[in-house]
Order: sequence, then C-alpha cells, then structure tokens
Amino acid sequence: MRKRLLVSAIALGSTLGLVGTALADDGLADYRDRFEPLPHLPSIPADNSLTKEKVRLGNMLFFEPRISASGVISCATCHNPALGWSDRIPRATGHDGQIGKRNTPTVLNAGFLESQFWDGREPDLESQALGPIQADVEMAMDLEGALSRLEGFELYQRRFAEAFPGDPAPISADHLAEALASFQRTLNTPDSPFDRYLRGDLEALSEQQKAGMVAFVDSGCIACHRGANLSDSQFHRIQVPGSTDVGRFDVTGEESDRHRFRTPTLRNVAVTYPYMNNGATETLEEAVAIMGQEMLGRDFEQATIDDITAFLHSLTGEMPDIEVPALP
Amino acid sequence: MRKRLLVSAIALGSTLGLVGTALADDGLADYRDRFEPLPHLPSIPADNSLTKEKVRLGNMLFFEPRISASGVISCATCHNPALGWSDRIPRATGHDGQIGKRNTPTVLNAGFLESQFWDGREPDLESQALGPIQADVEMAMDLEGALSRLEGFELYQRRFAEAFPGDPAPISADHLAEALASFQRTLNTPDSPFDRYLRGDLEALSEQQKAGMVAFVDSGCIACHRGANLSDSQFHRIQVPGSTDVGRFDVTGEESDRHRFRTPTLRNVAVTYPYMNNGATETLEEAVAIMGQEMLGRDFEQATIDDITAFLHSLTGEMPDIEVPALP
Repeated sequence: MRKRLLVSAIALGSTLGLVGTALADDGLADYRDRFEPLPHLPSIPADNSLTKEKVRLGNMLFFEPRISASGVISCATCHNPALGWSDRIPRATGHDGQIGKRNTPTVLNAGFLESQFWDGREPDLESQALGPIQADVEMAMDLEGALSRLEGFELYQRRFAEAFPGDPAPISADHLAEALASFQRTLNTPDSPFDRYLRGDLEALSEQQKAGMVAFVDSGCIACHRGANLSDSQFHRIQVPGSTDVGRFDVTGEESDRHRFRTPTLRNVAVTYPYMNNGATETLEEAVAIMGQEMLGRDFEQATIDDITAFLHSLTGEMPDIEVPALP
Repeated sequence: MRKRLLVSAIALGSTLGLVGTALADDGLADYRDRFEPLPHLPSIPADNSLTKEKVRLGNMLFFEPRISASGVISCATCHNPALGWSDRIPRATGHDGQIGKRNTPTVLNAGFLESQFWDGREPDLESQALGPIQADVEMAMDLEGALSRLEGFELYQRRFAEAFPGDPAPISADHLAEALASFQRTLNTPDSPFDRYLRGDLEALSEQQKAGMVAFVDSGCIACHRGANLSDSQFHRIQVPGSTDVGRFDVTGEESDRHRFRTPTLRNVAVTYPYMNNGATETLEEAVAIMGQEMLGRDFEQATIDDITAFLHSLTGEMPDIEVPALP
C-alpha cells in the first residue's frame, strides 16, 4: 500500500514535469501545496497588541496558583510545560480532585485556532482565559477573589501597570485575560520536521512519513485537519468509543450541533496523548484507526495506520523556551 | 536601638584593633565570624554519588505528576520553583484537595539539613523522598504503582539505566529516592547578599541589615539558627499561636519531644512565607516578633524587628537555574 502510493505520487510528479526541475525533488510538490508551514506567531487582535510587558505578565499569571480557590492549581497544572502543555491524563483533574468531562487540549499553537474549547464556546484566547479560573471543576475561583489576590501583591500592581499603561486601575478581569492570551500567543511550535519539509528541506521527513502525508491527503484527513494548525476550527459530528458527550449542542441548543466538536489541532499530537474528547484513546495508532472509522467510514490497513502515525510524529515542533517565573 | 548596637559593635572592633586593618572594614568581623557562607553543594553521601545522570533523572521525577494517584500532583506542585520551591499557602494541599497539618518546607538547601521534615522523622533526602509520594494527603500513591507507571515509559527505562548502570532492574524504590535526592542536592542558593558580605564584600549589606545581623547574634537567634543553612538541625520546643501540633512526639513517643520541631533554615526565608509549622504567620515581621517571644522570652522593639527582618532579606540567594524537563 505504501509503495503503491509513493509510486503513483512520483508518477504524478513526472507527469507535471516536476522531477528533475529542482534538486532532489521528491515528486510530492502537489501534496506539499496542500499544507502550510506554521508561522512563528498567529495573527494578533487589533485590540490586544502583543507587547513584551503583557507577555511577561501573562507568563507570571499562567504559573500563578493563587488565582485558584485552593491556592495550588494554576493554568500550568493542566497545561503543563513538562507534558506538551497538556496533562497526559484522560480527563482534566482540578479543584478537590474533581475530574472534568473532557480531555485537556494543549495550549500550544492555540492562537491559531478560530474557536476555543472542544465545543468552541469561546471565539478567542481572551474570552477563553477566564473560563478555567472560574470553572468549579478546574480552579474554582470567583473572578473578584482572583483579582483581589493579585491586588495584594505590589509586584502584580507594577507589572499590570507596565502592561496596561495609562490605566488608573490596571488590575481587571479584561487585563487578566489579555495578558494570559498574549502569553499564550507566544506558545507556538514552528520548525517541526514537517515545517522544514514544507519549506524545502525534502530530507526532513522519512520515506514512511512522506507516505503518511500522502495517505493523510488521499484518505481525506486533510478535509478537516487543514491550515497551518491542521484544524479547520469547524464543528464536526463524532461519537468516539465510550463518549456520550453532546459537545456543541450544550453551547447552542441546536439539534444539528449535537455531538459536534471543533476539530483539534494535530500539531504536537505525538506528545499530547491521550486522545479524543474523552481522552479514552491512549495511542496515536488507535486514534488514527478510530478517526478512519468514525470520520471517513473506512478501516485503514495497518500499514496505512503506521504511515500516518509516522507522519503525525513529524508535527512535533520546537517547544517554547519559557522560564518559570519568580512569583511574588 | 539600632544606632546603639552599631556604635557598640564599632567600639568592639576598635578595641580589637580591627578598624583600619582592612580596607573599609565595618568593624563587625567578630559578628561575621559567627556565620558561614553557603557552599555551592552540601556534602554528598558515600553511597549516593552525585552524577549528572542521577540529577537529570531526579529533575524529571521531581516534575513527574504520574507518580501521584491523581496523575496531576508532582513534587513541584508543593515545592513550586515559581514560589521559592514551596507553595506560599499556610498548609500543604494535596490529593483531592486535602489540607495537611503543616506548612510546606522549601527544598532549597535541604541537603544542608541533618534531618528532614518539621519533625525530623527522616535523616536524609534519600529517606525523605518517598514519603510525600505515598502520604494520603499528598500524592497518595502506592510505591509499587509509582514504579510500575515509570516502567511503562521507555525513556524512564533508559534514564534509570544511565543513572544506575550495571543494575539489571534499575527502576526501584531506592533508585527513585536516590535520583530525587541527587537532584535536590543541586537546589542550593549560594551568593546571597549575606554570603557576599561574609566573603568580604562589606557593602553587600545595608547598614540596617548589618544592624539586624548584630541584633540576630546579640539576641540569641543564632543559638539555633546557625551554620551554613542557619539551622542547627536540632529539635526545640515551641508552640506558636494556634498550633496544637505535638511535633517530634509523634515520631519518638518521648514526652520530652512533645511540641519539639527541627529548626527550619532561614535561607530564603523572605520568599518562603507564610511561616511556622502551621503556616499561620503571614509576615516576616510577625515571625520575628513571635520567635522573640516564644524562643527568647523577650518582646523585641519595633526597630529591632525591622532590623532583623532587613537582615533576613539578605539571605535570599540566587535561585537554581533549572529547566522544566520534557517528560515522556
């Protein structure tokens, strides 16, 4: 199967006159053209310019456990830099050990998504940021309480004033969200092997990974997993094994949204296991097989699963080089 | 009060012929001689040599939440690098949000202590390391389960084999403890202003900090808070406000140990609030006043409290420059 695909791809390249036109062209230009390398930054909203002061403050706030009711849970607890900025457990575990109903999405490259959360209930990182702080099963903190704790630290008074100059009361819910969103917009993973491949380093992928890319396109995975972040940010109906989650129906109440979820990114998917909205799928191979069955209505052959899995491994980029901040 | 102490100290220096013998001598050599600068490393036990392989593995294990029952609590949760390697809440909060009975001690410079935990129930970092993993109110994990989770990762199999070469089954409770202890022995904070002062940079302390050092010696604080880590590692009877904790009595059952606690380090005390075994004391000024009353039987004047507090701020050293590891 793998061989046939590669041969046909090379034949296609020949037909198009591509073989021989560039040094060591692998004949897969038509496939590469279906993808986009990840930019180093997502687009920045006009009303929240990305400044180093906001990023520094957002970095502090991201690691700040005292904006949780217990005082020990921060954004970094579930979006753990040691664990692909996620938690590697099936479902998020938060305040008092409560277990949420969904798998924690990584924050890596989240700025490239056009809606946030599995059900897309918030449009951007600013509106997303305050949700987990207040959610009963996550940080379980009332917003006023969180702001008042921050007010208690002289260093935060200074850092908020630096990040939002000219505001007489810079510590506010909006600014908390804006600083967190700014920091998160810097958490990107460009320069994965696949990005290097798309930019012309044709040896950055192994032959198996290239076969996987071809299968990914030819099988139709790319219909939803497309664009720089390999997500169309759209909602698709899916019920993975063991899930009764109604997904976006909870947000809109529209029957047509029942069991719809926003397409997750595939960037860094190899280091953000387990998979699916319920986190019940442990390995990438299983995830590929399930997606083939549920979304594409086909049983992938094992060789195809292996190829696509190899390709997905090429989507692991350079992790952001952040410092653990010294909190007040 | 501050002036009087400084004047008398300078007079003492004159008497001893110290003034004028060294460039810009501040006349406090006799006081400096009572202290020791912090070495860059504590002594290393003969049966657990400090190797970079063990430190690297220990660094991973320290940040590893999957050796907790919930999968989200690691050593770094309560010994948080962002918070002076402690948690800055009164009492440790662990598994399922349970609140322990004591304040979390910092792990910074813990290798310099001759007994571990508030009640000194373990003699060294190796024997300490496995306690919090198994404690019901902390990580709540059975040791076999923790080891079996680690066994499940190929990277840990490799890293344990590298750290403990020649052992056919390198993933063991002893090695888990040895790696964690090795990492913790690197978490030291030399080169605080006070260390620079003791090494001859007489301008590293302000005049108020020097007055605080003098008061610290003259008032007797140094009787227990002595040595490189400003702890004698001995047990002293104390019942701070609000505490009914019997301390070391729980360990030995000896009536003479009732309410005895091991002297905590004062290194980095300014960044490891709140204070006392029950964490009920929020500020350093309060802590100084309480220690004066409880341990020295005296009511410090406010100026003395301010001086000693200023001195204690000079004990904040350079935080260890560690990386958040990439876990498997």
